[in-house]
Amino acid sequence: MRQSSQQPTRTRHGGRAGSVPTGECRCRRYAIDDTGTGRLLYPRHLIRLTLVTLTQLVDSIGAGRTITDPDLVREFCHDEHSYVTPGSPCAVVIAQTAEDVQAAVRWAAEHRVPVIPRGAGTGIVGGTATTDGCLVISLAKMTAIKELSAQDELAVVEPGVINADLDHAARVHGLMYAPDPSSYESCTIGGNLATNAGGLRCVKYGVTRDSVLGLEAVLADGSLIRTGRRTVKGVTGYDLTGLLVGSEGTLGIITSATLRLRPAPKHPPVTVAAEFASVVDAAEAVWAIVRASVGPSLLELMDRATLEALDEWRHIGLDPKTNAMLLCQADGPDAAAAAQVMAECCTANRASVVAVSDDETEAAQLLDIRRMAFTAIERMGACLIEDVCVPRSKLPEMFAAVERIAAAYDLLVPTVAHAGDGNLHPVFVFDRGPEIPRAVWDAAEDVFRAALDLGGTLTGEHGVGTLKRHWLAAELGDATMAAQLAIKNALDPLGILNPGKAV
Amino acid sequence: MRQSSQQPTRTRHGGRAGSVPTGECRCRRYAIDDTGTGRLLYPRHLIRLTLVTLTQLVDSIGAGRTITDPDLVREFCHDEHSYVTPGSPCAVVIAQTAEDVQAAVRWAAEHRVPVIPRGAGTGIVGGTATTDGCLVISLAKMTAIKELSAQDELAVVEPGVINADLDHAARVHGLMYAPDPSSYESCTIGGNLATNAGGLRCVKYGVTRDSVLGLEAVLADGSLIRTGRRTVKGVTGYDLTGLLVGSEGTLGIITSATLRLRPAPKHPPVTVAAEFASVVDAAEAVWAIVRASVGPSLLELMDRATLEALDEWRHIGLDPKTNAMLLCQADGPDAAAAAQVMAECCTANRASVVAVSDDETEAAQLLDIRRMAFTAIERMGACLIEDVCVPRSKLPEMFAAVERIAAAYDLLVPTVAHAGDGNLHPVFVFDRGPEIPRAVWDAAEDVFRAALDLGGTLTGEHGVGTLKRHWLAAELGDATMAAQLAIKNALDPLGILNPGKAV
Repeated sequence: MRQSSQQPTRTRHGGRAGSVPTGECRCRRYAIDDTGTGRLLYPRHLIRLTLVTLTQLVDSIGAGRTITDPDLVREFCHDEHSYVTPGSPCAVVIAQTAEDVQAAVRWAAEHRVPVIPRGAGTGIVGGTATTDGCLVISLAKMTAIKELSAQDELAVVEPGVINADLDHAARVHGLMYAPDPSSYESCTIGGNLATNAGGLRCVKYGVTRDSVLGLEAVLADGSLIRTGRRTVKGVTGYDLTGLLVGSEGTLGIITSATLRLRPAPKHPPVTVAAEFASVVDAAEAVWAIVRASVGPSLLELMDRATLEALDEWRHIGLDPKTNAMLLCQADGPDAAAAAQVMAECCTANRASVVAVSDDETEAAQLLDIRRMAFTAIERMGACLIEDVCVPRSKLPEMFAAVERIAAAYDLLVPTVAHAGDGNLHPVFVFDRGPEIPRAVWDAAEDVFRAALDLGGTLTGEHGVGTLKRHWLAAELGDATMAAQLAIKNALDPLGILNPGKAV
Repeated sequence: MRQSSQQPTRTRHGGRAGSVPTGECRCRRYAIDDTGTGRLLYPRHLIRLTLVTLTQLVDSIGAGRTITDPDLVREFCHDEHSYVTPGSPCAVVIAQTAEDVQAAVRWAAEHRVPVIPRGAGTGIVGGTATTDGCLVISLAKMTAIKELSAQDELAVVEPGVINADLDHAARVHGLMYAPDPSSYESCTIGGNLATNAGGLRCVKYGVTRDSVLGLEAVLADGSLIRTGRRTVKGVTGYDLTGLLVGSEGTLGIITSATLRLRPAPKHPPVTVAAEFASVVDAAEAVWAIVRASVGPSLLELMDRATLEALDEWRHIGLDPKTNAMLLCQADGPDAAAAAQVMAECCTANRASVVAVSDDETEAAQLLDIRRMAFTAIERMGACLIEDVCVPRSKLPEMFAAVERIAAAYDLLVPTVAHAGDGNLHPVFVFDRGPEIPRAVWDAAEDVFRAALDLGGTLTGEHGVGTLKRHWLAAELGDATMAAQLAIKNALDPLGILNPGKAV
């Protein structure tokens, strides 16, 4: 590695996928600003990667699985919504085995090149945003379900397996893979693990971490570790499994996961749909349902702005007086009784309409409406999707705070909530353009502060990524931040794994 | 700190509780052998603590809460069953606040004194065994339930709270604290957290880690960190909560915990008791029950030797042909139907007697028998209680292996299992004496190997402590061990927190 103190210049690559760029490639270590805009700034260091060093990479992985053509590389530089301006990677490795990942990481460690692992890129906080000169390792082609043991209710999968594909494979055996992020039909298990993804079923079955028994991961020095176990219990050594889950690729790159499957519900769910004149009333109903302890398997809330977006697109027949809709489900053997209790909680909290149904088609239609919410909102403009989570008793106050902040900044902020978990997604809608307007950032910050003041957290399930790093210390405090960074430095002393993300 | 190369001598202390020993106190850093016997050897280093330095400790904590009298100190040197020969601490701090813990740890860090945190000392793997010259910090007097929020289904507690006391407090609100180690009436929450304790209800409600939302802990430099949150979801930063749980006091000393409470079952449980002529048949029945996915809330298995010990003590009327007993419970709204399925699984696997009961008194009596099992076995001799866990499909094979190994070594090995988790406690019984016989160690090692060969782990819920460190690398492998130690070194660079334990 040679270092240079020259002014940074844009990375330029030649050649096609698998070939080595002609001439010299200047790659840079990233730097990131802390102004809360999440933009990548010019790098602090220059690293000069020569033709020889890039050839080493291509040779070790194979030409067909190493992309260096800038036009092709560009496809691997961003996630879905994060508004982070990506840098230009020096190459993308399409990993097919753990050995590929090891070889790529060893090469990156030798040359001090930042490594950005990625799955399907469905994240929305800039967790896979690239920096100039980095190496992207795509796990999306590692799609094998290596084992599915109905006996032990577990599956061993590669990180590129699509969430819904695993669930479908499990259903054949009367089992299910419980965590179901909204993007479950396109997101990968690896990405779910990296962000500790949540979903609609979390209210009953827990988040991704609750379904992980063990992992195989490549660390920053290229070594391969195995964590956890195949048993349902075990306390040998520190919980590295839990530590890697949610670490957003900053501690290791997951190459295999042993996941817990659960018995699929045996009966169709019973669904309750309720409409309210006030979103705060709907939130009060959620809290009443939580206190009733009937074990809902789904508890989702949509506010007026969300319903309007859906109505404009899909003509759902929105009543002018409806300002919030609550969807509840129960899937246990006592689902009918549980649904009845939930319906009563809605009525007691001033619901204008309450409908209970055990019709599966009707339930699927209602859930489809909920799952289309973000797409409907995105038709209205550019979006910044937030992800605060508060104690469930504070749900009404948090909804009131979002309404107040939206009004104060004169912003449209449709809000969807995994209400049973106290997890709100206020979506800040604004005119499309190259940057997120200052007022949106300010309003988002007010939302974070309100969540923290209510004993909440700034991200329930999406992760910190690049976007939320600015606010991290406000939630964690200095001593806890220091402990986090000590662990990062211990496992990645060169700081090459997804730098600038998560911590 | 002054170091000396003199031959080690026994630590001698004078004075009474709270006073400073007269004269000089020689304290030593521990060393531990790796021969698998778990004995503490002579120390590698000598540290000379002067009157002045011990006075500093007493002054910072308070004379009434610092014990230096050797006769009194001795009570804080061991756990219940681990057969580890303890060393002599230089002092015991009876912490009453997090600030006490901080002051004690800062003092220990300054003078390089090993710190052994402890709760009620009910562990059985030497996790709280002392080393010569160490400082013991007892958390047993920090017994406040600081908050119990029925609204948010959580409690904030100090580490000295007795497990059963928290559960009783929660029941008043229709909630429960689910993790219930066998010692639940005497063990502390802090000890449960340090070992990630299991229990009888784990099969339905998960282990201790599954009930922890957040922690407050003192790190090795005396800093106080807060991890986790009060919300049910959250992904801000690394999962330090999960990392601290089960770390056996080697990464930090927990001074407060935010724990998840759950709705207590609304109906009395339905209990199934079944007797079998073969323990392997009983294990087959367990596996059949697991596959039936009826969500048992308890699934415990006792073998012939255990039943004989109980019969000798409590005259339970053991049938000569009964070689295993299975206890099953279901506590959900469909408990009766679930119990029926479990009973059928027993019958299908050659149970000689199957009884189903929804009588609460009868259920309590059956559970009492199970909870008395270890006490009954201990009446027969000295005990080494093991704790292997295997995938549930391997339960019959593991029981067969224990039977085979017991016969090969001509040992009495009564075995109790949290069978629904695949977690076996083979208890090696031997004549009381100063040491564990070689044959017992060899047989225990064979049991560990058999568990690992079946895809299992060497400890399901008791922890590694001092006793099982010898076997750790065999399960984890070199790369994973290195990652564990990197984390330990990052958070405790001086190695003062419970050295020689867990990793």
